[in-house]
Amino acid sequence: MEVLGDLVNHLIKSGVHGLAPLGSTGEVAYLNHEQKETIIKIVVAASNGRVPVISGVGSVSTAEAVKEAVKAEKLGVDGILAIMPTYFLPSENAIIEYFTSIANAVSCPVVLYNNPKISRADLNPKLVMQLAEINNIEYFKDASGNMGRVINIVNSNKIKLFSSSANIPATVFMLGGVGWMAGPACLIPKLCIKLFDICIQKKYSEAMELQKKIWKLNEAFQNDTPAACIKAGLILQGFEVGSPIHPQNSLSFADMEKLEKILTSLN
Amino acid sequence: MEVLGDLVNHLIKSGVHGLAPLGSTGEVAYLNHEQKETIIKIVVAASNGRVPVISGVGSVSTAEAVKEAVKAEKLGVDGILAIMPTYFLPSENAIIEYFTSIANAVSCPVVLYNNPKISRADLNPKLVMQLAEINNIEYFKDASGNMGRVINIVNSNKIKLFSSSANIPATVFMLGGVGWMAGPACLIPKLCIKLFDICIQKKYSEAMELQKKIWKLNEAFQNDTPAACIKAGLILQGFEVGSPIHPQNSLSFADMEKLEKILTSLN
Amino acid sequence: MEVLGDLVNHLIKSGVHGLAPLGSTGEVAYLNHEQKETIIKIVVAASNGRVPVISGVGSVSTAEAVKEAVKAEKLGVDGILAIMPTYFLPSENAIIEYFTSIANAVSCPVVLYNNPKISRADLNPKLVMQLAEINNIEYFKDASGNMGRVINIVNSNKIKLFSSSANIPATVFMLGGVGWMAGPACLIPKLCIKLFDICIQKKYSEAMELQKKIWKLNEAFQNDTPAACIKAGLILQGFEVGSPIHPQNSLSFADMEKLEKILTSLN
Amino acid sequence: MEVLGDLVNHLIKSGVHGLAPLGSTGEVAYLNHEQKETIIKIVVAASNGRVPVISGVGSVSTAEAVKEAVKAEKLGVDGILAIMPTYFLPSENAIIEYFTSIANAVSCPVVLYNNPKISRADLNPKLVMQLAEINNIEYFKDASGNMGRVINIVNSNKIKLFSSSANIPATVFMLGGVGWMAGPACLIPKLCIKLFDICIQKKYSEAMELQKKIWKLNEAFQNDTPAACIKAGLILQGFEVGSPIHPQNSLSFADMEKLEKILTSLN
Repeated sequence: MEVLGDLVNHLIKSGVHGLAPLGSTGEVAYLNHEQKETIIKIVVAASNGRVPVISGVGSVSTAEAVKEAVKAEKLGVDGILAIMPTYFLPSENAIIEYFTSIANAVSCPVVLYNNPKISRADLNPKLVMQLAEINNIEYFKDASGNMGRVINIVNSNKIKLFSSSANIPATVFMLGGVGWMAGPACLIPKLCIKLFDICIQKKYSEAMELQKKIWKLNEAFQNDTPAACIKAGLILQGFEVGSPIHPQNSLSFADMEKLEKILTSLN
Repeated sequence: MEVLGDLVNHLIKSGVHGLAPLGSTGEVAYLNHEQKETIIKIVVAASNGRVPVISGVGSVSTAEAVKEAVKAEKLGVDGILAIMPTYFLPSENAIIEYFTSIANAVSCPVVLYNNPKISRADLNPKLVMQLAEINNIEYFKDASGNMGRVINIVNSNKIKLFSSSANIPATVFMLGGVGWMAGPACLIPKLCIKLFDICIQKKYSEAMELQKKIWKLNEAFQNDTPAACIKAGLILQGFEVGSPIHPQNSLSFADMEKLEKILTSLN
Repeated sequence: MEVLGDLVNHLIKSGVHGLAPLGSTGEVAYLNHEQKETIIKIVVAASNGRVPVISGVGSVSTAEAVKEAVKAEKLGVDGILAIMPTYFLPSENAIIEYFTSIANAVSCPVVLYNNPKISRADLNPKLVMQLAEINNIEYFKDASGNMGRVINIVNSNKIKLFSSSANIPATVFMLGGVGWMAGPACLIPKLCIKLFDICIQKKYSEAMELQKKIWKLNEAFQNDTPAACIKAGLILQGFEVGSPIHPQNSLSFADMEKLEKILTSLN
Repeated sequence: MEVLGDLVNHLIKSGVHGLAPLGSTGEVAYLNHEQKETIIKIVVAASNGRVPVISGVGSVSTAEAVKEAVKAEKLGVDGILAIMPTYFLPSENAIIEYFTSIANAVSCPVVLYNNPKISRADLNPKLVMQLAEINNIEYFKDASGNMGRVINIVNSNKIKLFSSSANIPATVFMLGGVGWMAGPACLIPKLCIKLFDICIQKKYSEAMELQKKIWKLNEAFQNDTPAACIKAGLILQGFEVGSPIHPQNSLSFADMEKLEKILTSLN
């Protein structure tokens, strides 16, 4: 897993403000405990305090997720991105219980992650408001793509906002978003940081032009899982990260070529 | 229907740049041909050339929709908003045929309207690009809420963009959108125009603050159909527009009170 | 429309126990009032009292549906199949109101038709039980495909059951179903009646064998709307019924050939 | 876990023809490897060859699922029920790969389990036919509720059929189904066996009456996960099986009372 340390160094040198291993794209739902532990250790060691590490945590079982969160904190992460994979469709009570249990088990800050199309656990504004009452639940990362709900949550002033790739990051920043955790940043870190910077400087016209350009990368992610796409892109850039975890398929040759063209046009 | 003429005058005096009767909120799917004809006649007469009139057209049957479009053009509208209500789930071919038939039957500009959650006819970027080849299909109004797709379409430079209420209008304008056709403008026309104006002037920070404020009105539209909400709001403002067409329910007393509070806070 | 009269005669001679014009497959959602009136007149006249006529009634607007129901009764139908096409997603109150309004406007028996995948108005068991309290709401035709719900409704003993093609008719009959209203009966009336007859005689093993054979026709209906399939089949049998109403597409040549083979194998 | 051995003895004494630990209701998606191993050991030991043991196997990762299957076979199970939990929506290729990998890794018979509403991996008839070509994929257990598809698969004569609780078991048996793996059998084993027996004897009228009676238990399973319901029922019968694995909620007192009444009425 030397390649992971190399990637961490590359990203930090490119200027990223933090690292978020084990998110959705980081295959949190496909890895076993040992694999997750190894990844956190490598990222924490390679980062070596230069930038904060926010580790994804998630399991279909609450107890397993809590165990993972506690372990991650012990291994030195600076925050937890709490993800809720599901099997049976969870009730609202189940959703509240899951995130509350994780937050109560650690003392570091927790980011709520909402991705109902994938996880089927829908953190609607009412649930987010309720969970925001918990002390260390400080952030909300929305991947629902429903910007109306995001504005509702922003209007409440109760929780800070991270962008995902499912929303338009430039818009999230304009609404006061504090950051962006997204797979594409692995492939085009400098452009992503530039977008963040010019948004912070309120140069919004310029930001939207850059946003439109960057979006071409999202357009390449239609036919495959995000992990398959990011791994393919990293291989194109010389990082030998291997195949996505099966049953995820690798990119077809045609999709690989398309991705290469877009990456070239962006660099 | 004197009240409709009064509303037209009120909106034009408030500064709206155009009128769009018979959209989704305008109950296009609930009215019969005679009722639709009456509405177009009143709006065209009351508008009297002061602002363009873009009339909604839509029927489960292509032939009926074409008939409506031809009639609307004869009655003097300046453009057609083409809406596709459905019964059986339409194939991509059926979607192309429907919008092509309408566009070919008129000489005025046509706006494609996409609202897949309601109409189940999904105008994905591929179909929009294909339809944009037709001469008088000049505009696309997206109500899918999927901003990623909207950026894809903007990046193509093949069709001009209108915002609906399902997207964030401020963001649509930043992406180059040319206008906004939305129910809430009936209730808060001056604020909507102000939002458009400051977006055009590229005062995006100010725009996003206003956008967040205006969004509170959208939050009032959760439990009821848009027609029920807009009619309730208009009654609160003194326009006796009656109940939404059944089986749509009128607002409960509680929802009516909530709406009144929001409208008061916005004026 | 001479062909419609011919079809009526053909079906009655083939032994059908009733006629159900203007159902989903009968394009109720695609036809205007004049067309619907014409169809009812022809079917009532051609049937001439030999078998009961149950006419489909449905409109996005409650008032229009009520008008249709009253007109159908005046034109001599023996019962109403109440269908609820929708535009905005209806609330439970809206669903109750719609079917209640239709039932109260006529004195003939009413069949509730549930097809939530198409109409998005979901008549769940609770709503069916509530509507069954109305005097002339005597039947329920389920096309949800959810047999568990059908058993719930059968267990209530409050309403009689018709099968559609979305459920397994043989199973519906075993559960006490009183009949079957289905598009395929237009193409293979004798086999459908035979299935009904041997179910009534409780020859269930034989019935299930026939059911499996008949089901091959359903398998031909995957790629096209039911109206497109039935019209294609009728043309193959010499009834010049024309194309499905647009934007519905006609069958491709390949699908037409597949349908012809299946029909041949069934006759 | 003495209680699990007791339950096994109770079920075998009640006459069940086999045991299926670690299905959906058996919380396969909520347990870690050690817990799954413990359960298989207990069930195999307690069963002691009296009836076959078909163990559920499933993981979001193909490799983990394969490891589980191999381990289960080593521990002495007689067959594998292959279940596909997912995170990212799987492609058809991913589905084929997953089930093929499991089947190739063991020499015992494999049952394909389809439950698209829960797992989002839809084993449509085309995929089932393709997988049925693999030697030891001998059975298909459908929980999609889509009986039409089940008939398609039966008509193909390529794979043997098990019923789940989502379909009507009596109907599945009439169509030639060879068995039934279902949570409710834990609570009413004798009635379930009786239903199977009279179906095998082709006493279908009697079977459907019993089916309607048994279905009342399914009606109790509306508000809670199946594991929560079955565990609640087992506790009512004196088996101290504990709570469902969190975040699943236990039954409310009201649902518990309702379940108790139904169980009493069935015994």
